[in-house]
Amino acid sequence: MINFSNSERSDALAAQLRAFIAEQVEPAEAAVAEARAAHPGEQPAEVERLKDTAQKQGLWNLCVRDPQYGPGLSMTEYAPLAEILGTSRLAQEATNCDAPSSVNGDAMIIYGSDTQKEQWLEPQLAGLTRSAFAMTEPQTASSDASNMTMTAERDGGGEGADWILNGRKWWISGVLHPNCAYLMTVANTEALSEHTDVSSSRHRRHSQFIVPRDAEGLTVVRNLPKFGYLDADGHTELLFENVRVPADALLGEEGGGFAIGQARLGSARVQHCMRTIGVAEAALTLMCQRAGERTTFGQLVSSRANVMDWIADARIEIDAARLMTMRTAWLMDEHGNKAAAPQMSAIKVQVMRMATTVVDRAIQVFGAAGVSDDTPLARHYASLRALRIADGPDEVHLMAIARRELRSQNASSAQNEQDAQNGITREHTS
Amino acid sequence: MINFSNSERSDALAAQLRAFIAEQVEPAEAAVAEARAAHPGEQPAEVERLKDTAQKQGLWNLCVRDPQYGPGLSMTEYAPLAEILGTSRLAQEATNCDAPSSVNGDAMIIYGSDTQKEQWLEPQLAGLTRSAFAMTEPQTASSDASNMTMTAERDGGGEGADWILNGRKWWISGVLHPNCAYLMTVANTEALSEHTDVSSSRHRRHSQFIVPRDAEGLTVVRNLPKFGYLDADGHTELLFENVRVPADALLGEEGGGFAIGQARLGSARVQHCMRTIGVAEAALTLMCQRAGERTTFGQLVSSRANVMDWIADARIEIDAARLMTMRTAWLMDEHGNKAAAPQMSAIKVQVMRMATTVVDRAIQVFGAAGVSDDTPLARHYASLRALRIADGPDEVHLMAIARRELRSQNASSAQNEQDAQNGITREHTS
Amino acid sequence: MINFSNSERSDALAAQLRAFIAEQVEPAEAAVAEARAAHPGEQPAEVERLKDTAQKQGLWNLCVRDPQYGPGLSMTEYAPLAEILGTSRLAQEATNCDAPSSVNGDAMIIYGSDTQKEQWLEPQLAGLTRSAFAMTEPQTASSDASNMTMTAERDGGGEGADWILNGRKWWISGVLHPNCAYLMTVANTEALSEHTDVSSSRHRRHSQFIVPRDAEGLTVVRNLPKFGYLDADGHTELLFENVRVPADALLGEEGGGFAIGQARLGSARVQHCMRTIGVAEAALTLMCQRAGERTTFGQLVSSRANVMDWIADARIEIDAARLMTMRTAWLMDEHGNKAAAPQMSAIKVQVMRMATTVVDRAIQVFGAAGVSDDTPLARHYASLRALRIADGPDEVHLMAIARRELRSQNASSAQNEQDAQNGITREHTS
Amino acid sequence: MINFSNSERSDALAAQLRAFIAEQVEPAEAAVAEARAAHPGEQPAEVERLKDTAQKQGLWNLCVRDPQYGPGLSMTEYAPLAEILGTSRLAQEATNCDAPSSVNGDAMIIYGSDTQKEQWLEPQLAGLTRSAFAMTEPQTASSDASNMTMTAERDGGGEGADWILNGRKWWISGVLHPNCAYLMTVANTEALSEHTDVSSSRHRRHSQFIVPRDAEGLTVVRNLPKFGYLDADGHTELLFENVRVPADALLGEEGGGFAIGQARLGSARVQHCMRTIGVAEAALTLMCQRAGERTTFGQLVSSRANVMDWIADARIEIDAARLMTMRTAWLMDEHGNKAAAPQMSAIKVQVMRMATTVVDRAIQVFGAAGVSDDTPLARHYASLRALRIADGPDEVHLMAIARRELRSQNASSAQNEQDAQNGITREHTS
Repeated sequence: MINFSNSERSDALAAQLRAFIAEQVEPAEAAVAEARAAHPGEQPAEVERLKDTAQKQGLWNLCVRDPQYGPGLSMTEYAPLAEILGTSRLAQEATNCDAPSSVNGDAMIIYGSDTQKEQWLEPQLAGLTRSAFAMTEPQTASSDASNMTMTAERDGGGEGADWILNGRKWWISGVLHPNCAYLMTVANTEALSEHTDVSSSRHRRHSQFIVPRDAEGLTVVRNLPKFGYLDADGHTELLFENVRVPADALLGEEGGGFAIGQARLGSARVQHCMRTIGVAEAALTLMCQRAGERTTFGQLVSSRANVMDWIADARIEIDAARLMTMRTAWLMDEHGNKAAAPQMSAIKVQVMRMATTVVDRAIQVFGAAGVSDDTPLARHYASLRALRIADGPDEVHLMAIARRELRSQNASSAQNEQDAQNGITREHTS
Repeated sequence: MINFSNSERSDALAAQLRAFIAEQVEPAEAAVAEARAAHPGEQPAEVERLKDTAQKQGLWNLCVRDPQYGPGLSMTEYAPLAEILGTSRLAQEATNCDAPSSVNGDAMIIYGSDTQKEQWLEPQLAGLTRSAFAMTEPQTASSDASNMTMTAERDGGGEGADWILNGRKWWISGVLHPNCAYLMTVANTEALSEHTDVSSSRHRRHSQFIVPRDAEGLTVVRNLPKFGYLDADGHTELLFENVRVPADALLGEEGGGFAIGQARLGSARVQHCMRTIGVAEAALTLMCQRAGERTTFGQLVSSRANVMDWIADARIEIDAARLMTMRTAWLMDEHGNKAAAPQMSAIKVQVMRMATTVVDRAIQVFGAAGVSDDTPLARHYASLRALRIADGPDEVHLMAIARRELRSQNASSAQNEQDAQNGITREHTS
Repeated sequence: MINFSNSERSDALAAQLRAFIAEQVEPAEAAVAEARAAHPGEQPAEVERLKDTAQKQGLWNLCVRDPQYGPGLSMTEYAPLAEILGTSRLAQEATNCDAPSSVNGDAMIIYGSDTQKEQWLEPQLAGLTRSAFAMTEPQTASSDASNMTMTAERDGGGEGADWILNGRKWWISGVLHPNCAYLMTVANTEALSEHTDVSSSRHRRHSQFIVPRDAEGLTVVRNLPKFGYLDADGHTELLFENVRVPADALLGEEGGGFAIGQARLGSARVQHCMRTIGVAEAALTLMCQRAGERTTFGQLVSSRANVMDWIADARIEIDAARLMTMRTAWLMDEHGNKAAAPQMSAIKVQVMRMATTVVDRAIQVFGAAGVSDDTPLARHYASLRALRIADGPDEVHLMAIARRELRSQNASSAQNEQDAQNGITREHTS
Repeated sequence: MINFSNSERSDALAAQLRAFIAEQVEPAEAAVAEARAAHPGEQPAEVERLKDTAQKQGLWNLCVRDPQYGPGLSMTEYAPLAEILGTSRLAQEATNCDAPSSVNGDAMIIYGSDTQKEQWLEPQLAGLTRSAFAMTEPQTASSDASNMTMTAERDGGGEGADWILNGRKWWISGVLHPNCAYLMTVANTEALSEHTDVSSSRHRRHSQFIVPRDAEGLTVVRNLPKFGYLDADGHTELLFENVRVPADALLGEEGGGFAIGQARLGSARVQHCMRTIGVAEAALTLMCQRAGERTTFGQLVSSRANVMDWIADARIEIDAARLMTMRTAWLMDEHGNKAAAPQMSAIKVQVMRMATTVVDRAIQVFGAAGVSDDTPLARHYASLRALRIADGPDEVHLMAIARRELRSQNASSAQNEQDAQNGITREHTS
């Protein structure tokens, strides 16, 4: 039966989390920023103190769904918390819910061996380490995740042999964080697999590897800016030159990398959407405050009908995006990630587009201050605009949604034939 | 706890309703249209037969929430049924769920006296009569419902005296239907009320009257077209010249007309939104079918990325609009119409805007056929475009939403002072 | 050297034309409409009187560029006059500048034989007759004008033999006008041509014929509505069943139909654009007047910032569209129709899109009156919306513009190869 | 008579300028950037060599309209050159056409005394110095230029006394360039003027001063970023604390500052627009190249209909914006800046909006590379987005355009009365 009430548990945690951010995190922001500027590459003690506090208050690993490893909140219960965390990178780190580590953890809980969990997952869940996810490549359309050029070959070829990785990745986040311990890395292993058959190989040619951050042969080429902004934790370009990892660095089975990647991306996208709704809400609050204070030509900006239209549109579109995201979360909870795949594509497009527009209009209301760093808006815009490209650009998700719709509405062979000619199959982006 | 599943009862009725429409209503469409063209002003026997069938099947008065008078479905249960009814005017009539009668019934259930219910409500619920709602006036901004020019004066002035109505209304729907029995009519009674105090009068100056369709002095001036389309049941301009009704034609209390009108409009808007989502779904189906069949320059239209974007956008926006509408319905069920007022404004704007866009793009995919009557799209467009104006234009609802947002975000006296200067209060459009 | 001044001759005629419309045409509108309603299919005497007056005042055949047949105004000189004529169908007829006759005349001046000119052109230029243009077909994407299904075959096959036409056309304008004398008709003659070679045939398979309106075998199937509007002169569906025309009904050479059609369409589109700018200007005037008179919630509508944005956007976009149209006209004057082809596609899209938006917003400012026939806006909208489909939908013109841009920016063989695979060539829509 | 041909002189200079940029400027870019990074605050010798070359080739002071001080090109002749310079900051400096110096020069030619010209203008025209323009303030809506808080008071009060300036400015460009010699500075002198009468004071309360860059009491507080980009020449926040300048630092007459500022802004805006069209053209070229090279899911990106729509829209909108800009330039040439004021507002909005959209879409076609610095697109976006705020945000210009339109369309006193109540007069933003 339809019900739009949040769970009491989630509401209680939300109140607690808001208080933690207001009372602990925000007052620490300035000191942390100073410490980082003064000692780049070192983890500020203040951050560790915040993590301790969060852990003691039960505000820890909130994003971990598996009750064996975390509080076991459902996606719908986590959603309001993710939204609150959306505007505070420091709070994400303090509660051990920061991407991409959090989503790497999800994948390792499902696919990791006991040894892998002990070595990589447990320290991460304990807040001792963080991690990165290395998929995107400069020469491969990131929207077409079935076609990586990084290779992983067995040194010698036996089952127990080491793997040698070669290739280039970019836009890899989190690598520059002092606690980054490993990179979950996607590489092409097709050449090796004797089980490969040509027709099925497209989604069986990749595997996932756990590569230590300090592996020999792994170089950070540069830190990539987004609209001029360099992230302290990095969006890096990486070079892998004969990076050697042991046999048990393979996560899951050989050839299973695409499936792991898609599963992982599913959660990542939905959590991105939840946090992004929080960013949009914060931008709307700023827009309302500024409009309610600023007078031009003798009139409050908030009394001008065009600005009022922006505010109302923002309210409508944020609410709609939140409902769509909650429904996706509910489908994941009730029917699993795969059943929610079409909705994941939908919110990937809808939420980022909405938030980009809301933040852009907030900037306009602030005038020149809006494009500077006197508000967080310009930085938010830069991140959000990039999210309309990362994890599959809008157009690829729209194409996937349209194909699904056409297939379900039309049984005509013409449609399916055309799809086949275009080499299009459903799974690429879902 | 969040739950996006429909009720089983609603799902069962939806299946039954779909079958009724496919098996009974659609096959009868042509004959009904012919009968109406041949004998305008007469009710075709075929319609009455459909009504009998619907009544026997339990598909009757589905929209009546009060279990004393109908099946007692909640708004969230009715929503999927309203969506199915959205594209079939004949099915709306066959199930006795057609506007504006259905919503007049809601108002009368709440505000009508026993005598009024016996005389006007019971025959309507039995399917013997229909009714109209006469509020909008040519000289009054329909968005500002507190300022009607039609007057109602007591003949002589005593409590039991007749009322005399004078004025002009337009865009009054349903008046030309052969079974139309009465017009629920809003008129200004302020001049008469001795209890009027200046400050409160704005929303106390109107009263509602039940005016028989055949009242003397009531003239249909003309039937107004929407983009060239004349509705058989009429969107009429009406002249009231000394129309005399008895004392007990007053619905509810004197000066209570604004409140009744707003309550009534609330339900009407939400039901409009539910039906409109059905129209948008139907347009998306047509768009997919056409795009999947039509080849231009050697390519299926459905394989072109711009058309695919339209299809995907339509899917996203229809889903978002439906969720917003369901949430509004749930709020009405759980917390009453008043609590849902902000959401009513939101969906009034969002749903109509969405549907107008979806239908417009479907027209474009159909090419020249789309603007003709070879598809229902052009006619739908005309109705939907008018709905972005009727019951308060988009801009008025956006203004209401923005004011509410600004008020909740800003406690600043500047904002409230500005509102006061602009003579703006919250209730006008909710 | 850049110069944005109109010619003095054009300015003088514009003043004269404005006066003629204000003093002669507008006062006659009501009487003409009444006469047409009372005697459909008859030409009202009042229209003929207006034509006489226009002829005497030198406001006759203003659109005829060839000085042998008309006043010889250049396209840039005619543009301001076409804009003035834009909102008055009656003035277009009164000055003998109404489409499609005017553009048929242009084609006949260039391609007609002396006999054809004497029989069909001269009476038309004298205002005694009008004509139609029959190209669009229900089963052929109107955007792909190289693929007509109507056939024309020689009866017997000799050079002097009659032609037999068979097929179906729709959206053929002007056929129902009482003075309509002939239809310039496009048919497929490829089967006959012994000179056909496969590679070149695509644009050589059609020919143009002059078919008398009263030809045996030519039936008007129905008059097609645009939204709910039926045009008195008709947008008809026509059936050609063994319609026999003599050998000299062929306009230009056999297989030359596509070229004539494209040339003709070029002028037609540009004149459509010019008139449409006039429609948009009229809508802006109405919007300003209404906004400047109407008060809601105690404020003039014209003082609301969202409405002001619409007005300003309209001013900007109308001006931009006019400049683009003038540049196209100037290119036609200076360098010929072919050189102006890319610009013709551009204004076809830009002007109609702009005008649709402007009229739609004017409707919103008028509220319910805007969708009725109390203003000309709803009718204008219906026509303009259809023009975003007729003569090639927006998407086809955008595709043509994009291909041209890509070709001029990229010399890469990849691009050209892809075009070739898509069966795309430049000429289809230019 | 309408004529869309450029002047031969302008065409010849354009060819020469293109060659200069390709052969001299672009090859020097890397070395100049390196030199600036290595020795910030020093002018690289390479830049001076480029300036010498440009001067010898006659590509010098192209923007100076007055033939006494420069080549005397009209605005329409300069427009194509400004467009070419649009994407190359280095070429702008090499040809001595960089803002804001160039526009300060224009103002000084008109309003400067002989002494001022000798001291400040001549070295600037010779390429020895540059300058800044200090108007915008953090606490004053930059859209309302009649209300500066910076004060200038006469020390002692006599005619020959020094002026003392106090206040804060921000977004002042060019201050950090090593050659910056002075700041044209707007300050409020109203308190002093004995001629002030209340009604006229609004636009008579400011004066312009020439403040040496090294004046005592003038501090650079910080360099403001646009999104994450810091400009080497600075967009600075400045503090004026008792900055003393001599009596003859006053440019023009006391109280004449608003008029000088508006005149200056007029030229500045139009030159901004011209250069911005060049930026949009460059983005379109990049978008076409990338789309023509990149393959996703087996299809060239340039063959996807949504990308083709973006390309075509860009072509249409760039052309439209250029025509509007050329018409504005022509009006300035023929009828003076004041006559062109309405068009200046129009292109300020239209050109920046167009260019922002074109660059944003180019970014989307480039994917992740687009938001980084691997293309110039993200940096262009940051500048263009800021230009929708600087020199009056879009909304203020749209309001000015709408008011003008309403005034010219409606003679109604209601409109004018409403304007009066709103304290609105025409001149603020023109």
